[in-house]
Amino acid sequence: MDSPFAPLLATDRSRVRRKRERGSVDRALAESILDEALVAHVATVTDRGPVVLPMAHARVGDRLYVHGSPANHLLRALAAGAPACVTVTILDGLVLARSAFHHSMNYRSVVLFGTMQTVVDVDEKRAASAALVDHLAPGRSAEARPPTDAELDATSVLRLPIAEGAVKVRTGGPIDDEADLTWPVWAGHVPLTTAFGAPVPDGDGHGAPPARLGTLSG
Amino acid sequence: MDSPFAPLLATDRSRVRRKRERGSVDRALAESILDEALVAHVATVTDRGPVVLPMAHARVGDRLYVHGSPANHLLRALAAGAPACVTVTILDGLVLARSAFHHSMNYRSVVLFGTMQTVVDVDEKRAASAALVDHLAPGRSAEARPPTDAELDATSVLRLPIAEGAVKVRTGGPIDDEADLTWPVWAGHVPLTTAFGAPVPDGDGHGAPPARLGTLSG
Repeated sequence: MDSPFAPLLATDRSRVRRKRERGSVDRALAESILDEALVAHVATVTDRGPVVLPMAHARVGDRLYVHGSPANHLLRALAAGAPACVTVTILDGLVLARSAFHHSMNYRSVVLFGTMQTVVDVDEKRAASAALVDHLAPGRSAEARPPTDAELDATSVLRLPIAEGAVKVRTGGPIDDEADLTWPVWAGHVPLTTAFGAPVPDGDGHGAPPARLGTLSG
Repeated sequence: MDSPFAPLLATDRSRVRRKRERGSVDRALAESILDEALVAHVATVTDRGPVVLPMAHARVGDRLYVHGSPANHLLRALAAGAPACVTVTILDGLVLARSAFHHSMNYRSVVLFGTMQTVVDVDEKRAASAALVDHLAPGRSAEARPPTDAELDATSVLRLPIAEGAVKVRTGGPIDDEADLTWPVWAGHVPLTTAFGAPVPDGDGHGAPPARLGTLSG
């Protein structure tokens, strides 16, 4: 995987400290995780303390976009300059060790830090809105009825530069202590995948459901 | 669904403001989401700002447990009394509307607020550790090699009372504007499910993989 942008910036708050061998600042890896995951967990701190909510997201180049109602409390805090931490996690499997202590999960995660900015440029706002729709179903923004100016006005789109952050990945089987290898229980790992069920049409329907939906693991 | 505990407490920071009809304080619903999801996103604020990380979790009654290394920066902040926000999200589907604006996702989420406490009582710590293993694979803690005292000492277990928070759920198809119903594109919703792949044994293996693994949607 390649990316035209620089590796993620490691800072005091973004550096992976625990299990460092699982951490990296590989931007292409970060991009692949951001592009595959369907949801981001967006955190900030307000006068009521920390808050983290799930949000749809989309990446365009070295920018991550989220959107929502202008009345959304979290988005308003972020738009006003409150610091952001955005974490995107894909679960890849369960790790069943012989010892309870070494049970784990396989996962890929990206943690980004920074300050978000409200997108005011109309062209960027339209492009970001299209990216958010295409993130769910590639090409969908070209088929759906485009947003009106009033709909764009009724949406806050925020941009986070993908700059400061870290990736953390665990793969493979359990790492048991030597002395536990004869413990009489099955040990190994069990992959987790996300799958689409049968599409449920709304009303009379027109045409066929999109052939491609997101980019899922497995 | 029933729960022996009171509904979640709605406060200024936990009350669902946007799309209120999707919000609730139904504890049994919150419990079912916490029990089904495999990962929680745990947020706090440190002197470096907000941070949110994915963590394994388990519920025992009206308590939510997370664990990790005593050196874990986030757990240390929480153990020292930093306010916590824990969000658990299950994605249930993609919602493809005729209009770009009304695209959405079906999901179930729980957002909890509070202050965590370090579990010091050894019996509670053992029970929480077992619950964390059983959350991955029911009954597994009875088969795996139990934690030694040294392993327990090398683990921080934190408890969050499940008290203040909210549930938010979206289900069903798109909600398009009347004028868009003839827009010539497929519209509907596409269920998402999480599935287990073929178990991958570690080493020579003993016995068969667990018949029951977590409690997944779909």
